[in-house]
Amino acid sequence: MEDFRARAEELDAADPLRELRDQFVIADPGLIYLDGNSLGRLPKASQDRLSALVDVEWGQQLIRGWHDWIDLPERVGDALGTALLGVAAGQVLVCDNTTVNLYKLALAATQARPGRTVIVTDDDNFPTDRYVLSQLATQQGLEVRTVATPMDDGVQLDAVKRALDQDVALVSFSHTAYRSGALAPMSAIDEAAHSVGALTLWDLSHSVGAVPVDLSRSDLAVGCSYKYLNGGPGAPAWLYVRRDLQTYLGNPIAGWFSQRDQFAMGEEYSPRQDVGRFLTGTPPILGLVCVEEGVRVLAEAGLERLRAKGVALTEFLIELADAWLVEYGVRVATPRDPDRRGSHIVLEHPQAWQLAQALIAAGVIPDYREPNRLRLGPAPAYTRFADVCEGLDRLRTILRTESHTTLPARPTSVR
Amino acid sequence: MEDFRARAEELDAADPLRELRDQFVIADPGLIYLDGNSLGRLPKASQDRLSALVDVEWGQQLIRGWHDWIDLPERVGDALGTALLGVAAGQVLVCDNTTVNLYKLALAATQARPGRTVIVTDDDNFPTDRYVLSQLATQQGLEVRTVATPMDDGVQLDAVKRALDQDVALVSFSHTAYRSGALAPMSAIDEAAHSVGALTLWDLSHSVGAVPVDLSRSDLAVGCSYKYLNGGPGAPAWLYVRRDLQTYLGNPIAGWFSQRDQFAMGEEYSPRQDVGRFLTGTPPILGLVCVEEGVRVLAEAGLERLRAKGVALTEFLIELADAWLVEYGVRVATPRDPDRRGSHIVLEHPQAWQLAQALIAAGVIPDYREPNRLRLGPAPAYTRFADVCEGLDRLRTILRTESHTTLPARPTSVR
Repeated sequence: MEDFRARAEELDAADPLRELRDQFVIADPGLIYLDGNSLGRLPKASQDRLSALVDVEWGQQLIRGWHDWIDLPERVGDALGTALLGVAAGQVLVCDNTTVNLYKLALAATQARPGRTVIVTDDDNFPTDRYVLSQLATQQGLEVRTVATPMDDGVQLDAVKRALDQDVALVSFSHTAYRSGALAPMSAIDEAAHSVGALTLWDLSHSVGAVPVDLSRSDLAVGCSYKYLNGGPGAPAWLYVRRDLQTYLGNPIAGWFSQRDQFAMGEEYSPRQDVGRFLTGTPPILGLVCVEEGVRVLAEAGLERLRAKGVALTEFLIELADAWLVEYGVRVATPRDPDRRGSHIVLEHPQAWQLAQALIAAGVIPDYREPNRLRLGPAPAYTRFADVCEGLDRLRTILRTESHTTLPARPTSVR
Repeated sequence: MEDFRARAEELDAADPLRELRDQFVIADPGLIYLDGNSLGRLPKASQDRLSALVDVEWGQQLIRGWHDWIDLPERVGDALGTALLGVAAGQVLVCDNTTVNLYKLALAATQARPGRTVIVTDDDNFPTDRYVLSQLATQQGLEVRTVATPMDDGVQLDAVKRALDQDVALVSFSHTAYRSGALAPMSAIDEAAHSVGALTLWDLSHSVGAVPVDLSRSDLAVGCSYKYLNGGPGAPAWLYVRRDLQTYLGNPIAGWFSQRDQFAMGEEYSPRQDVGRFLTGTPPILGLVCVEEGVRVLAEAGLERLRAKGVALTEFLIELADAWLVEYGVRVATPRDPDRRGSHIVLEHPQAWQLAQALIAAGVIPDYREPNRLRLGPAPAYTRFADVCEGLDRLRTILRTESHTTLPARPTSVR
């Protein structure tokens, strides 16, 4: 233990991002937060920005605030796109939620490939992606062709290639798998999809802000903003439409914010000729300014340094798991090659749900995912190596004392 | 002038809601705000609630905050539905924006009427409604049958009846017309639509919180929350699905928040059996708590009293317009019968755009709508009769001195 503790302290002392943590609210220094991949921490700047937005812009400017608010979806989209997605301005919007954005782009893409009848995705894709695509296919008379992905690995290129033919309109996967943390081979899949004339739509929710992505061959992407981007609960999501596709695709939800001369209130729908055509109705301003602040913090830190720290944190976490937890039946279910994983690590254990509850009681916040997975996301922006060490030490104590074994199983929550 | 000023003071003194204004932030007492129908004022309670949400729930509770957040769309929906829409709990959700909600329900409704090929709406409906319905029809191989509505009046029942036949799947109108303030005959249209087997979908954006509505014969409704509900810029919208239709209709945007056992992350999409099936992805929590506070303020005041004051304010405004403005070419373009109008008044003038700019310069905030309309919304919750008197006096001064005549025309803002 002492060796690892000393190692953690050395790593923290040498961490070029160690001061970044000061930009976040750390209300309880004793709490070990390993769920930044579900809901990122609160940036201090967002507190001030929200106060200014609410008290001054809404409270005093009232309707005149729209002068500054109207372009927020594009302005925040540009900041996000250029700093964290590696794309030129004018191709990213922050609006709606990931589900709605995925629906808009998936439907637009299939409609741009008339005569083609197949959407390809994988069986380990995030539920909302699978549900949206399957319902969309049912409604449009299309078929979903589902590729098998091992639960401990990313989307398999060979399996994707076998699923591709001239019937495929759209190929849609997540880059970082929510359940394993494994990465899909984006560019290779983009190339394979394009070789049969299909469009690609990536869900980057578990990558954006932590893992560099190469969208240079991709067509479309979506992602959320409340994980590594620290945009707050239910923050608006984002979408990417490559510039040359912006006038080629149509937004199926043709709201007034996508109209060219919006306030002319014209008789006919005449959509914008840029990425703004994928807006719907009035965008959520409170959430937008929080995303802007969240992106600003990460942009200043730099994605390369964030990724380097993410790799170091997850390497250290795996090392601790091997040393401390494997003997209690814990298995690392994330690829051990850092180039093949995102920024969260999954630990498999038959009583993972009970372990998660025991961890929370012990002041460590993990995430749990079905069927038997502890998901630990040491967000690079504010997680210390000492936090990882302490969190896994507490987990080791729970396993050693078997304090989790008396806790009840996960309740179902059918609504 | 003095007579009207004295009248205004008497009306304010006798106003049973006069203390309600104290619950709102009034940063500049000299500013006359007549645009609460576009963006409602900031409730003081929302400032405190947002601080608690951000600093304590997000900042300290972190992911554990979802324990309380997860039901917000239904909880706020129930509060809104029971207090301001006159419907029983379990039929209203606060989620997404009005455009997305309209799209979801319109598409669901047309799919529930297979074989029927027509959507009926009117040519003076709000742009987002017309655009969404027309694009949806194009995509689904349907036709929009557009009823003519006079720009100074509400949807005409006779014209609607003439448009109805067995081909009609969906009938969709706004209750309060955005451009004239006129009311549509909701229940009569519901009855007429049902007599041919069509479903009805109402946009109540310009009614909710100011005008009582009778949804007892209606099928579906949507509306926004940033006007009379004072939910803030881009606040999430709401939707209503009558209970017996909730399992009959399908949500076309089948996101994970509409799944029965959401966190089982199950293979198949198995939608909820209640109004929750019309959720999409992660709901916007910051906006939701503001809507909850906005609804609470109005619920405590009571919709009957709000409506009574809205009628009195608009009666007074029309009286002033007749006395002071008609001689300068201003025409009241809203029905004079209070039972046939909502809570905003439209004044027509050939240079309405310039008048709006001159008013803003004079410390009065109106709204402008094409082609030549000043839209004045004296929101009942915080507008005083003295504000209406002062606002129209300043407008009279502008007209008398012709200070607006040198201002430029509205610029187009094609994006």
